Amino acid sequence: MANLYLVGLGLRDEKTLSLEALEILKKCQTIFFEDYTNFIKKDTFLNLEKILEKKLIRLSRAELENEKLILNALNSGDCALVVPGEALIATTHHSLVLDAIKLNHKIKIIHSSSVVCAAISLSGLHVYKFGKICTIPFWHENYQPTSFLDTLKENNKIKAHSLCLLDLDENANPMPIKKAIEIIFLAQKKRKLKLFNQNSKIIVLSKISWNDEVIWAGKIKDLKKDIFGPAVLIFPSKMHFLEEEYFNFLKSYSF
Amino acid sequence: MANLYLVGLGLRDEKTLSLEALEILKKCQTIFFEDYTNFIKKDTFLNLEKILEKKLIRLSRAELENEKLILNALNSGDCALVVPGEALIATTHHSLVLDAIKLNHKIKIIHSSSVVCAAISLSGLHVYKFGKICTIPFWHENYQPTSFLDTLKENNKIKAHSLCLLDLDENANPMPIKKAIEIIFLAQKKRKLKLFNQNSKIIVLSKISWNDEVIWAGKIKDLKKDIFGPAVLIFPSKMHFLEEEYFNFLKSYSF
Repeated sequence: MANLYLVGLGLRDEKTLSLEALEILKKCQTIFFEDYTNFIKKDTFLNLEKILEKKLIRLSRAELENEKLILNALNSGDCALVVPGEALIATTHHSLVLDAIKLNHKIKIIHSSSVVCAAISLSGLHVYKFGKICTIPFWHENYQPTSFLDTLKENNKIKAHSLCLLDLDENANPMPIKKAIEIIFLAQKKRKLKLFNQNSKIIVLSKISWNDEVIWAGKIKDLKKDIFGPAVLIFPSKMHFLEEEYFNFLKSYSF
Repeated sequence: MANLYLVGLGLRDEKTLSLEALEILKKCQTIFFEDYTNFIKKDTFLNLEKILEKKLIRLSRAELENEKLILNALNSGDCALVVPGEALIATTHHSLVLDAIKLNHKIKIIHSSSVVCAAISLSGLHVYKFGKICTIPFWHENYQPTSFLDTLKENNKIKAHSLCLLDLDENANPMPIKKAIEIIFLAQKKRKLKLFNQNSKIIVLSKISWNDEVIWAGKIKDLKKDIFGPAVLIFPSKMHFLEEEYFNFLKSYSF
């Protein structure tokens, strides 16, 4: 039986892989690659092929969910699946783990940086004070979900900071920040909630760890330019004075 | 003015560093190293010195908090501070960032794997359903804090999974699992709370990503052997059936 390595790529490209991950990939018979559960830098796939001097197999969502390609490849030796961000935090891959184990293969998870912890790290807010995270979904004419507000409401109730991931559209483009805020306000209007107003504080973190990373902090109404690229929104709850000091520092760094 | 790189080491040793981190460390004039905010593998410091062919400076807690050594070194060129886990998630380093910025130095954060996201990843529980995290503190004769229960209570209220970090003792030894559970039960008795009983489900993750990693899942009463080493406890709230399936899989893998 073979080893299946779930390898976290990290936040940006082949350079955010760990030394251990690279060592393992060099030894694997077959390397699969998925780039749809998270946003990564263009050319990562090609650059990784160059570094490893091997062909990689890019999987579509359907191919990955079907699992056949991976489970069959395991019959000929060790395989790796390279996953953007932290290796197993997207629940998409849990069933692959279970199915590989059922066939007596061994699983090893190679951890990497995750957007969740990186955003908390950069925000200067205390990791202990974050509540549940949620995703802001795109709205369509006949589908305008507001359930993410339940999470924000619950966090509010326990004075927890809220971290929101933003959805990708059908072409895998991340949601612009202004669009996310518009959807939040429309949703709370629809639900007759008053969780946020134009004076609410917000931290926007976009393209974390990229050369053109953007960190913006301030009140919602002061966000004049739009911010594009894969991003995370943080709505701080009541801040400790040290958190407040860091928030003000980020504010003065805003673009 | 110089660059100060806060470099996340990752969860275990020099091999959990990213390729980017290694590149940066090779170029830095001075490299500081702290190993007290998180538990890492013995000899990491020495191995990293060998890889880089450079002397590193290990900082005590007092030296790091004093900041002088680092701020002075920045006057002679780029510096890095290597931090176990994710680079800036321990709030200890926020004031260093602020003070270096005040002196016109540039800060760059090099992200890495964090125990928080790695534990969520391995648990198979949905990242969206975790509430606030807390630390279980050691109890001493005259100091028996129970405030961590407030977090567990709040998470309970919003049906969130709870992730608990375990304290280190005065010799930087991590708390054994049985001790952590004992303190939780004593604390809830003291506070007249009934959050957990012997039938409560628990996931224990110890030495994540080490060769002798332990993952244990089951009911508290079924935890017969003790588990030693840096660990994380997870108390699942109500589970989705896919989470339940994964929990049962972990259970069958328990040692």
